[in-house]
Amino acid sequence: MKQTEAVDIQEYLSEKCRLIDKLLDEFIPPATQAPQSLHQAMRYSVMAGGKRIRPILALAAFEYCNGEQTRTGRAIEYAMAGLEMIHTYSLIHDDLPCMDDDDLRRGQQTCHKKFGEATAVLAGDALHDIAFGLMAKTGSTEVVTELAQAIGTFGMIGGQMADVEAEGRDISKVEITEIHNCKTGSLIRSSVRIGAILAKADYKTLMSLSKYGEKIGLAFQIIDDILDIEGSQELLGKKVGSDCLKKKATYPGVVGLKPARQDADRLIDDAVSYLNSFGDNRLIHIALYIGRREK
Amino acid sequence: MKQTEAVDIQEYLSEKCRLIDKLLDEFIPPATQAPQSLHQAMRYSVMAGGKRIRPILALAAFEYCNGEQTRTGRAIEYAMAGLEMIHTYSLIHDDLPCMDDDDLRRGQQTCHKKFGEATAVLAGDALHDIAFGLMAKTGSTEVVTELAQAIGTFGMIGGQMADVEAEGRDISKVEITEIHNCKTGSLIRSSVRIGAILAKADYKTLMSLSKYGEKIGLAFQIIDDILDIEGSQELLGKKVGSDCLKKKATYPGVVGLKPARQDADRLIDDAVSYLNSFGDNRLIHIALYIGRREK
Repeated sequence: MKQTEAVDIQEYLSEKCRLIDKLLDEFIPPATQAPQSLHQAMRYSVMAGGKRIRPILALAAFEYCNGEQTRTGRAIEYAMAGLEMIHTYSLIHDDLPCMDDDDLRRGQQTCHKKFGEATAVLAGDALHDIAFGLMAKTGSTEVVTELAQAIGTFGMIGGQMADVEAEGRDISKVEITEIHNCKTGSLIRSSVRIGAILAKADYKTLMSLSKYGEKIGLAFQIIDDILDIEGSQELLGKKVGSDCLKKKATYPGVVGLKPARQDADRLIDDAVSYLNSFGDNRLIHIALYIGRREK
Repeated sequence: MKQTEAVDIQEYLSEKCRLIDKLLDEFIPPATQAPQSLHQAMRYSVMAGGKRIRPILALAAFEYCNGEQTRTGRAIEYAMAGLEMIHTYSLIHDDLPCMDDDDLRRGQQTCHKKFGEATAVLAGDALHDIAFGLMAKTGSTEVVTELAQAIGTFGMIGGQMADVEAEGRDISKVEITEIHNCKTGSLIRSSVRIGAILAKADYKTLMSLSKYGEKIGLAFQIIDDILDIEGSQELLGKKVGSDCLKKKATYPGVVGLKPARQDADRLIDDAVSYLNSFGDNRLIHIALYIGRREK
């Protein structure tokens, strides 16, 4: 492991966001290429910005495990782009009228508002698809399997289903934790794991990083729920208060706002405890960034 | 290659349909497992029957290339189940109100009619996802890449987009051929190729089988269009005449019914010409079956 060194996390995040934008631009066909409307819609949603936290976590985990040294070709870059495409596909489908029916995302109209529902469904499908193609390009079927499990019916899609079904219903802390772990936590945990797998991390490190990913994943969604109550629409780029309006199940809705914040803080602390403090400390800084994020 | 032998194709198809049903049952989580509504919807759509032509083609191509001898474990079975799940996912999404808005499929209510739109979108997504997981289980990233390309924006999804955009518009024979090649031909061709790839076919055989797959894929969709005009709702398990009602671009609509039938027949002949007549003749019989199918 590398020696701990001071890291300007904002600079690191900004730099990696630029890299990720470049990769996404490279791996999505140009908007001038047929079917144009589909490629336009995919680019519109993917290039709208966002925190890019999933690919950044994959890269930081890869670096944490000294992936640089065992790196073969561009595997981690393929995985990074694929992870962001999966996240965007899930947002496009979640925003559909039959799901969360959202009009605004990342400060602009949602995909179906801009391009129509049929195009939005297909743009999501196509991103889902390209992402798996990129995972295969890493040369590792293990990475493809990891992703498929993370976003399947026992992961992201299952969480989204449970989320839709929980609307308007009283649920327990155990249930909301499970929904958040699946809906959001699963892909975040998997992003960390994919970075580690590509760096050929040993079993013990992979297990520690899995726990780290699990903890920050849940914290991330709890803070999302908190920001929907306390946050700024300008900073977030989406409407605030919409969870409440839609009677969505949220963590602060179940446990209260202050306990939710305390739980998020505790999860961040827990996450950091799984890291080797002598290692590259970017994963620590990313966890702290997630804990205090305002967008 | 094996010696040509008499094959009762109906018996072969029925036997393989039973195998495929068994595999699908094995690889989709039980309907009793949470999220139940999602697993129920997935099973409802996948287990509704259908010709299972894509997995059967994969298996027949695998056998044609003497796959039995180089077979490692259950790779071809994973691929077969995955291919049928991809097909079903595409049907579920295509049937959505914002797409083709169909109420009937395989003789029963469409997924969104039965389970609601949100569940249908997610059931399609989940099948898309499990399919890639199964492709990874074959141990071949080449197979994952093959599938991702076949169903992406230059394949199935691109064809579906072009199909939606062509509604109500006059299009040429070149355009409808391109739409059909992408929308339907691409996955059929890929099914044949995946069987061959898993059997470690040599380059020349893979190329011949790709042409075979391309020809029967186009023929399959032309006949689909013809059956929508001439077919029986009872046999087809879906409404007939719906293409016309929706002003959908169809092959007989562009070239006329009789020329469409002639083109389909010619494509079947072409397809067969790419096969080694000393080889296992199941692929020949499947091509002939596609040419004369009534459902």
